[in-house]
Amino acid sequence: MSDILLKNILVDEVLKDITISGGLIKSILPAGSLHPEPSAEVVDCSGMAAIPGFFNMHTHAAMSLMRGVGEGQRELSSWLQEVWKVEARIDPEFCYHASRVACLEMIKTGTTTFNDMYFYPETTVRAALEMGIRPAVCYCVLDLNDEEKAAREKDGTEKAYEQLKDAGCIFSASIHSIYTVSEKMILWTSDFARRHGLKLHIHLCETRTEVEDCKEAHGGLTPVEYLDRLGVLDQNVIAAHSLWLSDSDVEILGKRKVTCVHNINSNAKLGSGFRFMFDELRSNGVNICLGTDGCASSNNLDMLETIKTSLLFQKAWRGDKDTVTLKDALNAVTVNAAKFFGLNTGRIEEGAIADISIVDLGSSFFLSNAPVLSNLVWSAHSDSIDSVIASGRFVMRHRKVEGEEEILSLARRQLDKIRV
Amino acid sequence: MSDILLKNILVDEVLKDITISGGLIKSILPAGSLHPEPSAEVVDCSGMAAIPGFFNMHTHAAMSLMRGVGEGQRELSSWLQEVWKVEARIDPEFCYHASRVACLEMIKTGTTTFNDMYFYPETTVRAALEMGIRPAVCYCVLDLNDEEKAAREKDGTEKAYEQLKDAGCIFSASIHSIYTVSEKMILWTSDFARRHGLKLHIHLCETRTEVEDCKEAHGGLTPVEYLDRLGVLDQNVIAAHSLWLSDSDVEILGKRKVTCVHNINSNAKLGSGFRFMFDELRSNGVNICLGTDGCASSNNLDMLETIKTSLLFQKAWRGDKDTVTLKDALNAVTVNAAKFFGLNTGRIEEGAIADISIVDLGSSFFLSNAPVLSNLVWSAHSDSIDSVIASGRFVMRHRKVEGEEEILSLARRQLDKIRV
Repeated sequence: MSDILLKNILVDEVLKDITISGGLIKSILPAGSLHPEPSAEVVDCSGMAAIPGFFNMHTHAAMSLMRGVGEGQRELSSWLQEVWKVEARIDPEFCYHASRVACLEMIKTGTTTFNDMYFYPETTVRAALEMGIRPAVCYCVLDLNDEEKAAREKDGTEKAYEQLKDAGCIFSASIHSIYTVSEKMILWTSDFARRHGLKLHIHLCETRTEVEDCKEAHGGLTPVEYLDRLGVLDQNVIAAHSLWLSDSDVEILGKRKVTCVHNINSNAKLGSGFRFMFDELRSNGVNICLGTDGCASSNNLDMLETIKTSLLFQKAWRGDKDTVTLKDALNAVTVNAAKFFGLNTGRIEEGAIADISIVDLGSSFFLSNAPVLSNLVWSAHSDSIDSVIASGRFVMRHRKVEGEEEILSLARRQLDKIRV
Repeated sequence: MSDILLKNILVDEVLKDITISGGLIKSILPAGSLHPEPSAEVVDCSGMAAIPGFFNMHTHAAMSLMRGVGEGQRELSSWLQEVWKVEARIDPEFCYHASRVACLEMIKTGTTTFNDMYFYPETTVRAALEMGIRPAVCYCVLDLNDEEKAAREKDGTEKAYEQLKDAGCIFSASIHSIYTVSEKMILWTSDFARRHGLKLHIHLCETRTEVEDCKEAHGGLTPVEYLDRLGVLDQNVIAAHSLWLSDSDVEILGKRKVTCVHNINSNAKLGSGFRFMFDELRSNGVNICLGTDGCASSNNLDMLETIKTSLLFQKAWRGDKDTVTLKDALNAVTVNAAKFFGLNTGRIEEGAIADISIVDLGSSFFLSNAPVLSNLVWSAHSDSIDSVIASGRFVMRHRKVEGEEEILSLARRQLDKIRV
């Protein structure tokens, strides 16, 4: 990996030179003060700004080829039926090609780490590593209270763990949800995660129905209370959605230091809700991240859009233009996520992993007296991201990703498989 | 104006050839069935789709250089103070350059007609006509109950009308709002509009405060009831925002066939609200359009983003994923707006004015079995718009607008004027 020198690049509104070496940010000095190593690639970044690569903390990457599935269905449950019909047809080849498309889209929109939950995780790991971004995957346990399925899911988790624990990815345990997984398997999976020092990825409180059904099934306990009663919640749990929460749920999630992932585009599009308790969760000690969810519900993997939509909804439903700040939202897609995984990245800082997006400030969207980050989030789109560096290596240069035409054309052939 | 032949372009999912002549769509025939006129420019549009140019039905174009103004202010009223501080410094030169930037951004995001309300409308008309898109402007009456100001506003309206009535734009009368304009001037402006056959552009029911203050000032009447009592409302009135409405307001607006413009990004970002009564307004006979508002509140002029955000909010706050359809939203930025102005455009149809965006389907955002329009709105961004034709003339080709570097660099010099 050759060294890189990014010259004349804006970092927090100040012109700097950034050197990257061995995958890390080696130095950040005032522009013009550095001399490149003879072996360094020198990149003039005049008119550009550096921002940290984003984390997409809840997605189903291989659903990238399922945009629009079930969109014509009137009810949420019939939408899910359509998704399941399609998912019955997919295979590892499909998931590999679809994951490549997802990684391509993530790179083009500035994401360098993603937290995935889907079938055939090994195909997603392969795609991400080939393309140079950081995958966190899991084996998702879903037994529908069926003993035979439960046995298969144990086996699946163990095998996936053996296969992926040293495969260059983050491997987590996963419980699909409290309504699709038996109590026995919830406990088994939680225990498996603790024995192996893994994170635990779960869908939690996505819909009002989930909460109501849980209360009925578990003597009035909410999903959060139920999981807490089982002893599952701790700082290694990452709970996608966390949308329908009581005050007591918020307190429990804070006390257990759970990480909650808000997926506004998916929640809004499916009509699931929008009152994510950002302020309350944070002030109770919850670590907040953002995600896109899968493309069958949110339709793209663009974290910049996710940031903006999250902010708009927070300001709108609170009726308070200052409830969640730009910085809060940016932290949720960078440092908060890095903290959850224990990674030294998510910031442009000496010694950190070099996950950097280079933003082109040349369009009308940046023509203002406002700071770069305000213009980036409120005004611009992800196509302002000119180049992306992940773990110290260029994965996109001037909007081009190596092999992108081939990735798209090979994936196109997979679409026939899922035409219902 | 030379003829254009768009070959192999998707129109409503079917491959067509489109010929454009004299500013109009002359024919739409199955792909391959046409032979170009010798003088026609032939454009191969394989892998592209044609959609109608968008209408941005409420904006303040020359605020394009004011992104981020007052963003650090905690209260809406102090935000407005910041905006006014900046606006005290602007002049026709500023408005001309800022309008050019706005037109550039509108073209790049597929807008070919915009309905503006701002100072020095003649500068905005000049910018738009030079750049080839269709401006609707007004002289905005704002007298703050001051007799002297009222006299100046009459004079301003009359002079602007004389100057702009034959200037190649749509010229409307305008009342800033019921809380900034005296009853006398509301009546005078409404009468002026009727005498000259003009549209009437007004801000209406943007905030809860506006409604409460109106009730207090006018014996319990809402702003809609108040204007109706004055006899102002009819099918020539275009009411921006229309956000805080009673059931009776909705009925009145429907009965009077008013056009209402929803500006979700601005409303959400300023914390003004989000419960736009799309379904109720439409079923009561209101003509619904969408707009971005000015860049000091909504930060960009991207109608594709506006469509998506509007749909997300409608689905979210209703808790119903099917409340407003993609088609409803697309109509709101095309045919509904065209109908208001009595223009034969907003659709890809023989005989219509040729306002066409050519969408590049080559990215991951379109790699699905879903229809083009679903992918365009739900998944893609405006940078998928490869080229734009307005009134039969290319105003953007392959993402390049003539003179764009110069437009941006000349405008950049105006930023110093408004640095507070």
